Amino acid sequence: MNRNSSNTMALAPNTSNKRETVCIFGTGDFGRALGHKMIQSGYPVVYGSRSTQISNLIPKGAEVLGHAEAAQKAAVIIVAIQRQHYNFLTPLAEVLHGKVLVDISNNLKLKQYPESNAEHLAQLLPGSKVVKGFNTVSAWALQSGTLDASRQVFICGDDVEAKQMVMNIVRGLGLTPVDKGSLLAAQEIENYPLQLFPMWKFPILLSLGLGLFFFFYSLALDVIHTYIYENNNFSFFIAITVPNRVFPVMALTLLGLVYLPGVFAAIIQLYRGTKYQRFPDWLDKWMLARKQLGLIALAFASLHAVFTLVTPLRAFASWRTSKQIISLALSNETVPLDHTNAWLSDSYLAMGMLGFFLFVLLGITSLPSVSNSVNWREFRFVQSKLGYLTLILCTAHSMIYGGKWFLNPSAYKWYLPDIYMLSLVVPCAVLVVKFVLIFPCVDKHLTRIRQGWERKPRYSE
Amino acid sequence: MNRNSSNTMALAPNTSNKRETVCIFGTGDFGRALGHKMIQSGYPVVYGSRSTQISNLIPKGAEVLGHAEAAQKAAVIIVAIQRQHYNFLTPLAEVLHGKVLVDISNNLKLKQYPESNAEHLAQLLPGSKVVKGFNTVSAWALQSGTLDASRQVFICGDDVEAKQMVMNIVRGLGLTPVDKGSLLAAQEIENYPLQLFPMWKFPILLSLGLGLFFFFYSLALDVIHTYIYENNNFSFFIAITVPNRVFPVMALTLLGLVYLPGVFAAIIQLYRGTKYQRFPDWLDKWMLARKQLGLIALAFASLHAVFTLVTPLRAFASWRTSKQIISLALSNETVPLDHTNAWLSDSYLAMGMLGFFLFVLLGITSLPSVSNSVNWREFRFVQSKLGYLTLILCTAHSMIYGGKWFLNPSAYKWYLPDIYMLSLVVPCAVLVVKFVLIFPCVDKHLTRIRQGWERKPRYSE
Amino acid sequence: MNRNSSNTMALAPNTSNKRETVCIFGTGDFGRALGHKMIQSGYPVVYGSRSTQISNLIPKGAEVLGHAEAAQKAAVIIVAIQRQHYNFLTPLAEVLHGKVLVDISNNLKLKQYPESNAEHLAQLLPGSKVVKGFNTVSAWALQSGTLDASRQVFICGDDVEAKQMVMNIVRGLGLTPVDKGSLLAAQEIENYPLQLFPMWKFPILLSLGLGLFFFFYSLALDVIHTYIYENNNFSFFIAITVPNRVFPVMALTLLGLVYLPGVFAAIIQLYRGTKYQRFPDWLDKWMLARKQLGLIALAFASLHAVFTLVTPLRAFASWRTSKQIISLALSNETVPLDHTNAWLSDSYLAMGMLGFFLFVLLGITSLPSVSNSVNWREFRFVQSKLGYLTLILCTAHSMIYGGKWFLNPSAYKWYLPDIYMLSLVVPCAVLVVKFVLIFPCVDKHLTRIRQGWERKPRYSE
Repeated sequence: MNRNSSNTMALAPNTSNKRETVCIFGTGDFGRALGHKMIQSGYPVVYGSRSTQISNLIPKGAEVLGHAEAAQKAAVIIVAIQRQHYNFLTPLAEVLHGKVLVDISNNLKLKQYPESNAEHLAQLLPGSKVVKGFNTVSAWALQSGTLDASRQVFICGDDVEAKQMVMNIVRGLGLTPVDKGSLLAAQEIENYPLQLFPMWKFPILLSLGLGLFFFFYSLALDVIHTYIYENNNFSFFIAITVPNRVFPVMALTLLGLVYLPGVFAAIIQLYRGTKYQRFPDWLDKWMLARKQLGLIALAFASLHAVFTLVTPLRAFASWRTSKQIISLALSNETVPLDHTNAWLSDSYLAMGMLGFFLFVLLGITSLPSVSNSVNWREFRFVQSKLGYLTLILCTAHSMIYGGKWFLNPSAYKWYLPDIYMLSLVVPCAVLVVKFVLIFPCVDKHLTRIRQGWERKPRYSE
Repeated sequence: MNRNSSNTMALAPNTSNKRETVCIFGTGDFGRALGHKMIQSGYPVVYGSRSTQISNLIPKGAEVLGHAEAAQKAAVIIVAIQRQHYNFLTPLAEVLHGKVLVDISNNLKLKQYPESNAEHLAQLLPGSKVVKGFNTVSAWALQSGTLDASRQVFICGDDVEAKQMVMNIVRGLGLTPVDKGSLLAAQEIENYPLQLFPMWKFPILLSLGLGLFFFFYSLALDVIHTYIYENNNFSFFIAITVPNRVFPVMALTLLGLVYLPGVFAAIIQLYRGTKYQRFPDWLDKWMLARKQLGLIALAFASLHAVFTLVTPLRAFASWRTSKQIISLALSNETVPLDHTNAWLSDSYLAMGMLGFFLFVLLGITSLPSVSNSVNWREFRFVQSKLGYLTLILCTAHSMIYGGKWFLNPSAYKWYLPDIYMLSLVVPCAVLVVKFVLIFPCVDKHLTRIRQGWERKPRYSE
Repeated sequence: MNRNSSNTMALAPNTSNKRETVCIFGTGDFGRALGHKMIQSGYPVVYGSRSTQISNLIPKGAEVLGHAEAAQKAAVIIVAIQRQHYNFLTPLAEVLHGKVLVDISNNLKLKQYPESNAEHLAQLLPGSKVVKGFNTVSAWALQSGTLDASRQVFICGDDVEAKQMVMNIVRGLGLTPVDKGSLLAAQEIENYPLQLFPMWKFPILLSLGLGLFFFFYSLALDVIHTYIYENNNFSFFIAITVPNRVFPVMALTLLGLVYLPGVFAAIIQLYRGTKYQRFPDWLDKWMLARKQLGLIALAFASLHAVFTLVTPLRAFASWRTSKQIISLALSNETVPLDHTNAWLSDSYLAMGMLGFFLFVLLGITSLPSVSNSVNWREFRFVQSKLGYLTLILCTAHSMIYGGKWFLNPSAYKWYLPDIYMLSLVVPCAVLVVKFVLIFPCVDKHLTRIRQGWERKPRYSE
């Protein structure tokens, strides 16, 4: 059911009370939040607690009993207590025998304990059926009913029936259970809520570093140099002009960095004559970061597109236009159309737009729901064929934009190349090596290696 | 399998006939459509009907028998008859004992009956295994094979094996079964096809109301006032200029309304000193509508972006430009660049573009498949950190755009503030209160409350 | 778990070794790649091979034994050998009795064998539990750990427990199992990796053909005709101007072609007086291609939008503007604003932008994850109501753009209509017929037919 409908359902308490009683051990924050939600969804809830006095902390409609009595009332027991207190459950082993224990605990940091909390619980109570779950859900969101984010609840456990029971409760709360397999997956599930975009850290830091470098490079050449040598104060270039020189350079460089590791991998395989050796660690990590690098490159390309399209609206642009036209008008000249210029201008714009269009297509195919609906052959077709076409178009866009300036000494302020020339380094390197790699003789060899052939078969000994 | 492949598969009838016979009770529209599809997919189909005469209404290749004989031929029986006729099944209870009955019925309106149709059927025939399913699929789409929409079929039932059998049939038809748990979910599944964007009703009505108000406000000040006092007929402003004054105001106001309930909730919690009390109903509903409000705000922001970028292509714009340049040229003036103006123009454009960029990012992360792939910590990081950054950038964009006009009396036509000033009311209110809330002393207090602390612990009695 | 986290997990070998041994028959490329991945994920792996000599071809940490000994060590056996060698497994039938055999084979082309490989294996070894799986995963991706594409592994099989065991292994490797039902689904799963966008072939070919035709049509009228009769060399129009005349025509024509089959279907049903007759084959295929046609139309519309917005940045545009302004300035004229022109210009731009906005909305709702979260009623509302509104807006955009040129003889170069007139043919035809179809008398009749009514009920015999 879509999240919307679930939301509305969640508001209307199901009064039928046909659902089976659930027991919750522990009256901490998450235990109470979960109890609230369960009562709202029509589950009778009984809390197991050391003291049955604290009855008004717990949600209305719930019962509070001692641990043993509470456990006897339900087949499913939510263990909402911290791992360090699990030991106190061992005396209850007999009562808990055959019961489904749901471990909902989270750790404070990665690798806090050698084994997962759920596996620890299962070792303490071998007679019970331990299921891991609910730890990826926010107590606050459960409480307030504002589950805007993922409604998925990861579940794992060794007993299939116990898992089914827990999954039914998950569904009853309007959430979507996702079976992650046996209890061995508990570690992964417990680590999950602690992550903060782990795959994005390196690409974002790299982009930040490169971005800052290019920003100051462009600032020096476009603003400071102009100020010193032409005595023009173009400090307002910091808002649009300088960023819009950095964005395309970043987009093109990062797009090149997406395809560079593939080229390295091919070279390494050709050199080693086998694919059955692990790549160096840095290359492995780089290959895993390609998707993120590509998406950041797309973000820069989008910013470049918008910052470019906004040009005619800038006060500076209209001032420059009117200045040019007035000076032409005053000199009484009629300027003929410069056809070379028209060709260059139109073709670099067309290249850029087509490249950007393909880039957006690549971005759309990397949406999880889209990439899940294509097979490997289709995915590789899109990512390698369309990807290289995008790289070629964008590189050509940058080259034609540079055009006649490459050999013009006035383009080298302070003997430094203009920033767009820097943007060409990585993509040109990739394209040149790739061009060599698709030579039939090289390509055939590489294909054989990738299909499992080895130069020095290791049958020798 | 992706929907495309399923489509192609569906066209090629599977002639293997290794599939098990399915019985369909009822030869109404949906029963026939389902039978068609099943025969196409290789299932032998036998219809149970009062009269075995009407044999040419039913799909080719299907058998028609009396109800009892038909039921005996299959393990799975599709009950394609209306709820009010369920009673006639009771005499068949013995034949149907142990059989899987699939209830595919829908109601005409919400809450038509106290219990769901499937639960009603299960009560009538306690010996049979009732499974709810197929009711969310369109008969017309099944018939024509054009299942462009969701291929998901929601299934629920108390017997796991019976559910598995029905889910296998669903898969055999090229559809995707989604297990919704026990038969208690039948009510939700039966209500599902009756909905028409229930979560969008309030946000859309609100936007419509606000939009109309701002439209007439801008029409009055920008078109009618100009017509009366300056005698300029700018009626064509209705097409682009006026909408493009309304769009940004709507976008900014709605974006503010997304963050306003969170601020209210914090104030209420601080005041009450606890989080264990339900929010007032209007706040609950508002919080549930935040995602929709945000997406509508994004739609207005996108329209604003496109309507702004198109400006230089308008006949009015080129007329105004040429008028300005000609008057300058004729007066033989050379205008120096106004640096303050260039700074203001560039920075409000840059703010707007960056804000819009982040806004689009927020929109992408709210796609179901993307939000399902981030955990709670990541989701909150994106939605609250990036969300507030977006709000700040867009508010700054609007403020700098206004710039020097705030204190200029000529901006107050008919003593009314210009429309962009109205757009600042909600976001500024949100930002000011939020600024107070992130003061360390307030923030620490609020965090404690949200972790379960209470000012007046209710242990008292 | 999201793919990112799975990636990181996959890098860190699970050293717990609590997982159960898996046996792999065959040491070919895929068998080795799978073994590598399994050892990395903590599974003890034993290879079954004719010769136990080739021990260094196989991944480190794996054992190599004869087939029978290897099979005895594990409950799950991956059959990584080609179909033509399946016969050699028959002597092992006794050892393999009760074991789970995972068929991972793929064919080289569609319909190579009458029955699927997995079904063939199940016939050869009736005592074993055959499960189909892993064939949709790329060996190279498994090897390098760079599973950027779909992590879904399609699984099917007749034994539920055997399927569960294989699905747990799939999850253990960081992949997502998708249950496709009984072994009958094996054929579909085996065909899946061989497809290359089968649903896109016809729409892409059609677009290519139409696109080329319109390109040369526009080239002839806009470039060649101008060159011959006006002696102007506008060859650079090939980069932006000509494509931007083709894009809108393609977008509008293809959008019309999305709605044309629906109109045909309605006419056929009205004529036949029943919906229980199959449509002609071409119409069926056309209806199945509507989504793809619509997305290609959206791509063209997006290109049209970008190519149009870039206009003011073109060297040609600034040359033309300055030429116009200078000639006005030199003739000392003051041109009043042409209000009709301003109205036409603004309204065709506004129509175009609103149409494009709705078109993008339609595109977003066709993303799998979005269309899965709406029900049929909502989907039909969006696709038919919003779809027709888009078509009307875009057609009006094109008509107003044409405006006064329709009756102007100078618009007919070489007696041919301008290209934008061609773009109106299909959408206008659709809109006119649709207008007739929504007449109450026609609409009521059609609705009755679609609800199952028939003009000549076939009870006759």
